[in-house]
Amino acid sequence: MMRIGYILAGARQLLTMRGLAGPRRGRNLGSLGIIEDGALLVRDGRIAAVGSTADIMRRYGRHRAVVDAAGKVVAPAFVDSHTHLAFPAPRLLDYEMRIAGRSYEEIARAGGGIYSSVERVRAGCEGELRSNILYFAQQALTYGTATIEVKSGYGLDTESEIGLLEAIRDVGRVVSPELVPTFLGAHLVPRDSSRRTYVRRVIEEMIPRVAAAGLAEFCDVFCDRIAFSVGEAEQILTAAARFGMKAKLHGEQLARTGAALLGARLGAVSVDHLERAGPKEIRALARSQTIATLLPGATFHLGRHDYAPARALVDGGAAVALATDFNPGTCPTLSMQMILSLACTEMRLSPAETMAAATVNAAYAVGRGERLGRLDAGMQADIAVFDVEDYREIPYYFGMNHCWMTIKRGRIAWSREGFTTDEHG
Amino acid sequence: MMRIGYILAGARQLLTMRGLAGPRRGRNLGSLGIIEDGALLVRDGRIAAVGSTADIMRRYGRHRAVVDAAGKVVAPAFVDSHTHLAFPAPRLLDYEMRIAGRSYEEIARAGGGIYSSVERVRAGCEGELRSNILYFAQQALTYGTATIEVKSGYGLDTESEIGLLEAIRDVGRVVSPELVPTFLGAHLVPRDSSRRTYVRRVIEEMIPRVAAAGLAEFCDVFCDRIAFSVGEAEQILTAAARFGMKAKLHGEQLARTGAALLGARLGAVSVDHLERAGPKEIRALARSQTIATLLPGATFHLGRHDYAPARALVDGGAAVALATDFNPGTCPTLSMQMILSLACTEMRLSPAETMAAATVNAAYAVGRGERLGRLDAGMQADIAVFDVEDYREIPYYFGMNHCWMTIKRGRIAWSREGFTTDEHG
Repeated sequence: MMRIGYILAGARQLLTMRGLAGPRRGRNLGSLGIIEDGALLVRDGRIAAVGSTADIMRRYGRHRAVVDAAGKVVAPAFVDSHTHLAFPAPRLLDYEMRIAGRSYEEIARAGGGIYSSVERVRAGCEGELRSNILYFAQQALTYGTATIEVKSGYGLDTESEIGLLEAIRDVGRVVSPELVPTFLGAHLVPRDSSRRTYVRRVIEEMIPRVAAAGLAEFCDVFCDRIAFSVGEAEQILTAAARFGMKAKLHGEQLARTGAALLGARLGAVSVDHLERAGPKEIRALARSQTIATLLPGATFHLGRHDYAPARALVDGGAAVALATDFNPGTCPTLSMQMILSLACTEMRLSPAETMAAATVNAAYAVGRGERLGRLDAGMQADIAVFDVEDYREIPYYFGMNHCWMTIKRGRIAWSREGFTTDEHG
Repeated sequence: MMRIGYILAGARQLLTMRGLAGPRRGRNLGSLGIIEDGALLVRDGRIAAVGSTADIMRRYGRHRAVVDAAGKVVAPAFVDSHTHLAFPAPRLLDYEMRIAGRSYEEIARAGGGIYSSVERVRAGCEGELRSNILYFAQQALTYGTATIEVKSGYGLDTESEIGLLEAIRDVGRVVSPELVPTFLGAHLVPRDSSRRTYVRRVIEEMIPRVAAAGLAEFCDVFCDRIAFSVGEAEQILTAAARFGMKAKLHGEQLARTGAALLGARLGAVSVDHLERAGPKEIRALARSQTIATLLPGATFHLGRHDYAPARALVDGGAAVALATDFNPGTCPTLSMQMILSLACTEMRLSPAETMAAATVNAAYAVGRGERLGRLDAGMQADIAVFDVEDYREIPYYFGMNHCWMTIKRGRIAWSREGFTTDEHG
């Protein structure tokens, strides 16, 4: 019984993220709890022990298999806490038109924009959609991501939204990364419905059905100028809470609306975007347990430079997470490493702060902070190994993939060498 | 005899770049000469025929091996025409200090900056340097790059500069990508020499010795506020020309100095950077055969947004190429795919324009336009295969690596599946 499991040994740097948990989580982002020449024992899908390679080998090495991470960086696998990964097709038309300087309205008239994704979902593309979810989830794994939040929101009617969440659930059963489902019926007002009718349908029809089928852990609302008001968001999230779904918000992206204050007041798990957040929003988030999730990839891909005030949020005491916002219109990247590069270069977060924001804080942003995001005894063994000598090289060598191995619940789910282990890792 | 070689078949899009060669090269960047369901015959390291899969299979398919590129994009391998790849170590200190808002001077005082690389080279780091060149060159291959220009310039004395060029030559003999050596003794004035003495040493000592040993094809000068004047650059490049080395210039990066006009007048192969180029520089380049090489990665990594006027250069008739500028201080990326994303998003070039700029025009920027950068009968078989359905997805899905296979002189030099072929491709 003592000999089950395996040892991951010889890490040049093992990033434990010790000290970043608890009520002060994510508020001391610089201290990654690095063990040099570190090792850990993986047993029953969990981390059973962490320490120096010499110590772990002496205590547990006899008769146990060793995976050699010699000279590499071992870190908690990334948690991508905000994606719209369940989409039917890339939007290359939008991309070319935006590069050519066309407006959102012109793109929509030419058959692009978010409603083109909605139309495709409604026209029935279950196979395409499921294939994409599977492909994207497995691809994310090769960049070191082992947990992915996935939102609905391209259906905008009851059957289509439920169809999206069922696709996420079904594919989630077969892919290696854990998919965390979020109901985002309140993404936009559909073109075939009035605002008032649609909000009522979300509250009275969609939320009860999604909850009854257990299809979503979180309810999210796009609370902004072009989408839903703070009042509507509060109605929707309050209704969702009655059905056991925790709140998330898209807020302060295009306009400063008060979404962040609402999120803090409602105890939302996270408020995401925050490009327009000012001192008042930062203070409210700092006083709350709500995670401030920043999505620099969307600012980048839209060719804008008005990034969220990450430095002020961290310095002001908010718990900041980073996520991709993977979606076909505003952020087509699955690489958390690229997001770290953007956060360092454009937001002036330190490499250490970005690593913490993408692991321990991101785990809290999907309600899994006690299980994921740190490499400590008792935590789930979700681990990424990077082929660099120093963790700072991960954002530094930008636009590249440094991931060498991704471990999910103790199982080697992907490795650059091509081998994986089975479910008993 | 007719059965040697192999067929690469079934490409969803085969980008020939036909029509982009000749005296109007790179001035009609939108037309990539795409063959849908395309194939090509590789024989003796060259492309022997190109056409539809049906046509190529009918004419050459009997008894020939077929590499299946089904559903993928086949393009000329990238030519990275501007790198400082021969450096001893990453400069993580510079990176963290710059993120924290420290000035160039503060970084230099703390032991960072370009002179720290120079000190390390002069202290003797031949093994480290050769290991890095080998590692970086092979890594670039996995991102679809098969030809890499590499500059000296971290020695700044005769022996050290020659040592760098020898390292590039020696490692170039064993790596798969072709390394194109450029002498950049005139990178900066070293701290232990006066400007006047150093320029004389470059001209009278370094250039003759580099030429006698056949160590460089090109001579480059960093012509800018903090480096060498237009007058000094002209002296150096004129001396190099007498020894058979063609001219390149770093110009108009930090200040508008007249370097682009000098380059056009001297018939330089390329003028690189051009962040400060105005209408006069654009007109001069458009009238010349000099390639305007843009390096958006450096602007990005420095956290700046004053990108070179790419749109005006292309629209004004200049032949624009894109390169990484890979170096430890201002651009630590080897991914040409990332450079394409930056050029689309930040410079408003179309995906088609960026593909042409990174292949056919980049080949001209290293004097190899008649041999590389296009997939046409008679061209060298330097090919990249991307695991996407449409070439526009290469810049669109940013920060990711879409390369699936890289072929150099007909040889499969790298593939995601792990297999390679031998020298007789």
